[in-house]
Amino acid sequence: MNAEIIAVGSELLLGQITNTNARFLSQHLAEIGVNVYYHTVVGDNEQRLVDAVQLAQKRADLIVFSGGLGPTKDDLTKETIARLIGKTLEYNEEALESIEAYFQKTGRTMTENNKKQALVIEGSTVLPNDNGMAPGMFAKTGDTYYMLLPGPPREMQPMFTNYGRAEILKTMEKIERIESRVLRFFGIGESALETEIDDILVKQNNPTIAPLAGDGEVILRITAKHESLAEAERLIQQAEDDILKRVGAFFYGYGETTIASELAAKLKEKQVTVAAAESLTGGLFSGELTAIPGTSAVVKGGIVCYTNEVKHKVLGVKSETLAAHGAVSAECAKELAENVRELCGADIGISFTGAAGPDPLEGHEPGTVFLAIARAGQQTIVHPLKMAGSRAGIRKRTVKYGCHYLLALLDEAEQG
Amino acid sequence: MNAEIIAVGSELLLGQITNTNARFLSQHLAEIGVNVYYHTVVGDNEQRLVDAVQLAQKRADLIVFSGGLGPTKDDLTKETIARLIGKTLEYNEEALESIEAYFQKTGRTMTENNKKQALVIEGSTVLPNDNGMAPGMFAKTGDTYYMLLPGPPREMQPMFTNYGRAEILKTMEKIERIESRVLRFFGIGESALETEIDDILVKQNNPTIAPLAGDGEVILRITAKHESLAEAERLIQQAEDDILKRVGAFFYGYGETTIASELAAKLKEKQVTVAAAESLTGGLFSGELTAIPGTSAVVKGGIVCYTNEVKHKVLGVKSETLAAHGAVSAECAKELAENVRELCGADIGISFTGAAGPDPLEGHEPGTVFLAIARAGQQTIVHPLKMAGSRAGIRKRTVKYGCHYLLALLDEAEQG
Repeated sequence: MNAEIIAVGSELLLGQITNTNARFLSQHLAEIGVNVYYHTVVGDNEQRLVDAVQLAQKRADLIVFSGGLGPTKDDLTKETIARLIGKTLEYNEEALESIEAYFQKTGRTMTENNKKQALVIEGSTVLPNDNGMAPGMFAKTGDTYYMLLPGPPREMQPMFTNYGRAEILKTMEKIERIESRVLRFFGIGESALETEIDDILVKQNNPTIAPLAGDGEVILRITAKHESLAEAERLIQQAEDDILKRVGAFFYGYGETTIASELAAKLKEKQVTVAAAESLTGGLFSGELTAIPGTSAVVKGGIVCYTNEVKHKVLGVKSETLAAHGAVSAECAKELAENVRELCGADIGISFTGAAGPDPLEGHEPGTVFLAIARAGQQTIVHPLKMAGSRAGIRKRTVKYGCHYLLALLDEAEQG
Repeated sequence: MNAEIIAVGSELLLGQITNTNARFLSQHLAEIGVNVYYHTVVGDNEQRLVDAVQLAQKRADLIVFSGGLGPTKDDLTKETIARLIGKTLEYNEEALESIEAYFQKTGRTMTENNKKQALVIEGSTVLPNDNGMAPGMFAKTGDTYYMLLPGPPREMQPMFTNYGRAEILKTMEKIERIESRVLRFFGIGESALETEIDDILVKQNNPTIAPLAGDGEVILRITAKHESLAEAERLIQQAEDDILKRVGAFFYGYGETTIASELAAKLKEKQVTVAAAESLTGGLFSGELTAIPGTSAVVKGGIVCYTNEVKHKVLGVKSETLAAHGAVSAECAKELAENVRELCGADIGISFTGAAGPDPLEGHEPGTVFLAIARAGQQTIVHPLKMAGSRAGIRKRTVKYGCHYLLALLDEAEQG
């Protein structure tokens, strides 16, 4: 099956936003064995959209559209497609209800143009929008399939993964299954990891192993092609085993997870509670953990101790400590971790203090960080860290190091 | 002048990388008054590239290519264009020298296929590559201009800004300046805002006004075309004034800013300090504010009071309050804001409590939020909020509402 991706939106042609949807869709279509030969971007202009679709009809079996399903005048994707394939638009009850519900919920008054979002192409399969108001559509005429998806990635991505993908799979008779598994690593650089598994990377063929780096993490995507799902799975498992033998210590999870959600799950599983004292991370660590549903059971609380005043007054860091060693010190980190644990009554206290930059702090270069972990009746551990990069990068990676060390600790406890 | 951007590279169609070049080029072409009507992405396949170019020749005066200038077999952009426009490839002395120099500098030995990169289309203007080996080209046949640029952004971007842009300007007899300004709004939905300024949107022509929504915000890009920069600026200012007369209350900033950084700037300007008690936001608010350099002067600190235990023990929320009204209540929000202000010794205390979802909390639907703001010697203000969407979306928007209300308060203070 050959596909073409058409993104609709003048904001793309003006360079206001990047067409990340084309990448997402290409990646996920490749995974189910659909070949993508063209990406096209066209503005909110009916005639040019018509031209683009008529061309795509000639060269693709499946045309995936993103954008132009919104409530405003310049949103014209479904109107144009419907006209082209000789269908009318009809109100979709579920969609209309969910839009009305949305407005009731938010207490805002629904304007007429919002109703427009509930119009769908007659006879098409409606793809629910769990993160917005405009539903997606999957339609067929002649030999061509049309999938219409909303523009905003946070609406489009889950709609495709949860509903669109399955509709496409239904239409494919012989599917050469392309299964893939993503392994996520933290605490090791990309080139270091590649060196560790170099020979595996060299002899790869089926499955293929693609390394990808970003945000201080390394991702390995293992992709196997086979008609039998079981065989594809076996090939992937084999590769995973070989890889984890070498670099398992840095592996933290599969797929779309984050190291914070892996930590949250582990804390829940072991019913261990944590509290954080955050200086340079300023609340990021707690913010990331509590982003995961149900963490109230394990996140007791935290203190954002951005100023020495709060470090001393609220968290009881000794004035002498701050005077003698400064806030960016192992000693301060230790007291912060121990005292936040006490104050919030948690099993584990963790603290982050250091210089995030851009300027040095107390004479310490940006990237100088002290991370401490305190537990009842045990020696407090202090991890001194040295990082390069932007302020935002340093803060993000510091949070990930916190998750990394806590996970290691909880796993030790498991083994020991 | 109408342009089309063609990116060449199978890695784009496989979703391995995002086509950021199209955005960069669109933005910079718009700035010099070149209209971009299409983006196309095609793989490293000669026939499909030929088809794409022949189509572009029909609809554009200028075709800008990115990618496919490298040393490897699958790099075929210049070979294909040359053949299409009946030109040969010839070695470019400067390019050859700089390639040889590059290899000397890096102490690597130059392989034959690297020489291929010094081949340019005969009669074309060569665009030097200051950050890599493959030179760019600017050629003309008939009425069509062809600009060939390398794929890697760090090579393509400076090549375009330093050399390509000027070549295009030379070909334009009358240059229309395109100036644009971005206005950012929070606290009003896209369709509500459009309804407010509908008549302005309808009669728009020059300047044009393009609305864009995302993350609970609405963005308006005002774009004016004029030979005189001053006149373009005047047209934009006029439109901005008309718009802000209607929806100024929701406007928070220009261009690439965020509402959190606007708040940080305002707090610094007025030397007002803030402390936050974060229940459902779990540290996100403090995390966002402290992401901005130099906020230690205005962010005193904060308490992540995710559990009632911490709300009571650390922040002194009365047990009676929690018993009678629960944590998701105006009463709890009020005490949290007042006590965190006291505890951290800040001018303003702000609190966030509510149900982020996915499940109801204390019988409150996800999206039920109470936000309180406390100041010394003044009545504490409680804002009840109702939001829809995902847990992450609700938390993010709650933080933005916090910034929104604080900004409004600080502006009032300004006026009053």
